[in-house]
Amino acid sequence: MPRIVMKFGGTSMAGIERIRSVAERVKREAEAGHEVLVVVSAMAGETDRLIQLCKEAAALHDAQEYDVVVASGEQVTAGLLAMTLQNMGVQARSFMGWQLLRATGVHGNARVEAVEAVTLNQALSSGGVAVIPGFQGMSEEGRLATLGRGGSDTSAVAIAAGVKADRCDIYTDVDGVYTTDPRIVPSARKLARVTFEEMLELAGSGAKVLQVRSVGLAMREKMPLRVLTAFEDRPGTEIVAELGNDMERNEIAGIAADRNEARVTLTAILDRPGMVSAVIGPLAAAGIQIDMMVHSATEGVGESDLTFTVPRASVGQVVAVLEPMQEKLGYQKLLTNANVAKVSIVGVGIRSNPELAARMFATLADRRINLLAVSASEIKVSVLIAEDEMELAVRVLHSAFGLDATTGETA
Amino acid sequence: MPRIVMKFGGTSMAGIERIRSVAERVKREAEAGHEVLVVVSAMAGETDRLIQLCKEAAALHDAQEYDVVVASGEQVTAGLLAMTLQNMGVQARSFMGWQLLRATGVHGNARVEAVEAVTLNQALSSGGVAVIPGFQGMSEEGRLATLGRGGSDTSAVAIAAGVKADRCDIYTDVDGVYTTDPRIVPSARKLARVTFEEMLELAGSGAKVLQVRSVGLAMREKMPLRVLTAFEDRPGTEIVAELGNDMERNEIAGIAADRNEARVTLTAILDRPGMVSAVIGPLAAAGIQIDMMVHSATEGVGESDLTFTVPRASVGQVVAVLEPMQEKLGYQKLLTNANVAKVSIVGVGIRSNPELAARMFATLADRRINLLAVSASEIKVSVLIAEDEMELAVRVLHSAFGLDATTGETA
Repeated sequence: MPRIVMKFGGTSMAGIERIRSVAERVKREAEAGHEVLVVVSAMAGETDRLIQLCKEAAALHDAQEYDVVVASGEQVTAGLLAMTLQNMGVQARSFMGWQLLRATGVHGNARVEAVEAVTLNQALSSGGVAVIPGFQGMSEEGRLATLGRGGSDTSAVAIAAGVKADRCDIYTDVDGVYTTDPRIVPSARKLARVTFEEMLELAGSGAKVLQVRSVGLAMREKMPLRVLTAFEDRPGTEIVAELGNDMERNEIAGIAADRNEARVTLTAILDRPGMVSAVIGPLAAAGIQIDMMVHSATEGVGESDLTFTVPRASVGQVVAVLEPMQEKLGYQKLLTNANVAKVSIVGVGIRSNPELAARMFATLADRRINLLAVSASEIKVSVLIAEDEMELAVRVLHSAFGLDATTGETA
Repeated sequence: MPRIVMKFGGTSMAGIERIRSVAERVKREAEAGHEVLVVVSAMAGETDRLIQLCKEAAALHDAQEYDVVVASGEQVTAGLLAMTLQNMGVQARSFMGWQLLRATGVHGNARVEAVEAVTLNQALSSGGVAVIPGFQGMSEEGRLATLGRGGSDTSAVAIAAGVKADRCDIYTDVDGVYTTDPRIVPSARKLARVTFEEMLELAGSGAKVLQVRSVGLAMREKMPLRVLTAFEDRPGTEIVAELGNDMERNEIAGIAADRNEARVTLTAILDRPGMVSAVIGPLAAAGIQIDMMVHSATEGVGESDLTFTVPRASVGQVVAVLEPMQEKLGYQKLLTNANVAKVSIVGVGIRSNPELAARMFATLADRRINLLAVSASEIKVSVLIAEDEMELAVRVLHSAFGLDATTGETA
């Protein structure tokens, strides 16, 4: 019997009417002969309300007590959905996060360590639907632990992997993954299929459909995902390990845009062996994540500029680390610029087709968009550009790679 | 080191400002050298809100899922109070009901079976305040179980008994136990001390200061209670096993009034051995609780009237049980009357002083209040009267037993 996990986000659970419509959807899957596990978020707004209460109680509050407070939202929706299903004649019961999911790491942002699959398998083999609050589990010390904002996606994937489900369906308030942000390009198309790696690059660059951790976990566990809307019966986007021979799929999955980086440049830095690691080492030690990096040594001159990007929120910290090291590192100026954006083309096709990167650069050059830095991975080519050119860049690339929708089409 | 349990009701926990004022009070007790455990209710209104959600989800809902939903309210306040205490420099942590309290019996109205005192003793011996959500524990099947409305009082007493606390203080929105309902007698006085048995009679007759079960549990466990207001620094009422040589205390603790009963009369019932049990047996089997009973056999006539009282809500059920048995029981008419009230004098003095009952009857006779039934126990004499005479009866008895307050006095 096929076994599926269905995960419903906060807007799908906001109020009894919507919970009833979720229950109808769960009932259809159960009646279609699936073993069903449902993972639920708190009602939309509830987690924010609870976080606000914590902030009012104490500006700096204990993460363990925070977890006790905020975990309550999903507990409520899990109980309500279970009783709604029962009321519709569907055998169902709720389980609590602490009964099922062992978590580790820091409170408020814990990681899933193990899922009590035995308990769930028993429930499923007795023919019932298992309803589980997302976002939470039990810590090593036996206390409530939450998984960080959006953690219900990760709960769902972990539970799907734990019970060896055939699929994990994420019902949310968008109907799938798009070729780019539709607010920037109204003709963006919904993708029928995307690989885990592409999804990670798209999500990491700002496509906030799923919690990034949940996609990474699904990739490691080879758990196929689907992203769908809870409000209509429409096919969503499948997220899979391999596209296979999908002749329909464009070699570029989409264009990602990210305003969340800042550029740091050390000018005229003394170019000696180990220079890069002398800069990066202290930053990594301070927990600062470095993304793009350009080091253009000029032959014979002995000095060069070192440019890299960091999350915008880390710029102050970068300055605090590197300024006292000016003499030791031997650079002339420390420049920072937050008015930059990263635009990327993402697709498994990039691996095998160097023409794609060339087309990207040519397209941007045609519009006289200046590239501040370039980086490439197996499935992505990214350029750093001025922030005010970001939307233009996304639009021209979307067209250049044939992603614009003709009416009703799915990429 | 003296060990105390402090229990705070929903009005004391309604919002961060009030939680902060509760925390101040807890801090004072901790700084005074007490080991402190705090049991909290949900914010006022929250449990009703959660119950309403359950009703909307399913008119007839599973008690186990109901428990999952409604238990969340106290979880939130426990976390918030713990972080507020920490913020004030008081070492504190929350425990969940499922970590501490084993419950048994029906979901939604479970009983406390055991308290994990070891866990709490460890927390207390490390010098911290333990904050515990009231009203809930874990069932034998490892699921959340709640103790019924007002169950936080029972949680507090059970935990106090489990950790062998010296005292359990119940902070509520009234400032103590009164000689009678102050809405009926404005000159009612607050009692400084009352015995468990007196409190049970006063509570059972409508003085809803504490959950009746919690008083019964405190009596069995010999756990001294205090009822106090959370909003002012005033002495409340002590509830103790024995009054001792308290010369100040009136021999009557108070006057209880209860509108919640109805009278049932079987007229001209055939008076033969076993007749009473033939009537009461089937009612008890149907779960109907019988309170006062009068059976006046008239010598030589061979038949009599049998009158008893039942909770008003059970009248329909009584009729359904007894009507089909008319022939078998041999009564003439089945009469019911809901317009009755029970008024009682309550006090340990009644045991040893028959003059008190006599004074009660004389006082009511003076006002021509007709007695429909009379019953007496070791510490209580009750009369059943017409409902519209109830308030008058309470007032005249309150005066006759010297309970009326002179300004500021405590009985």
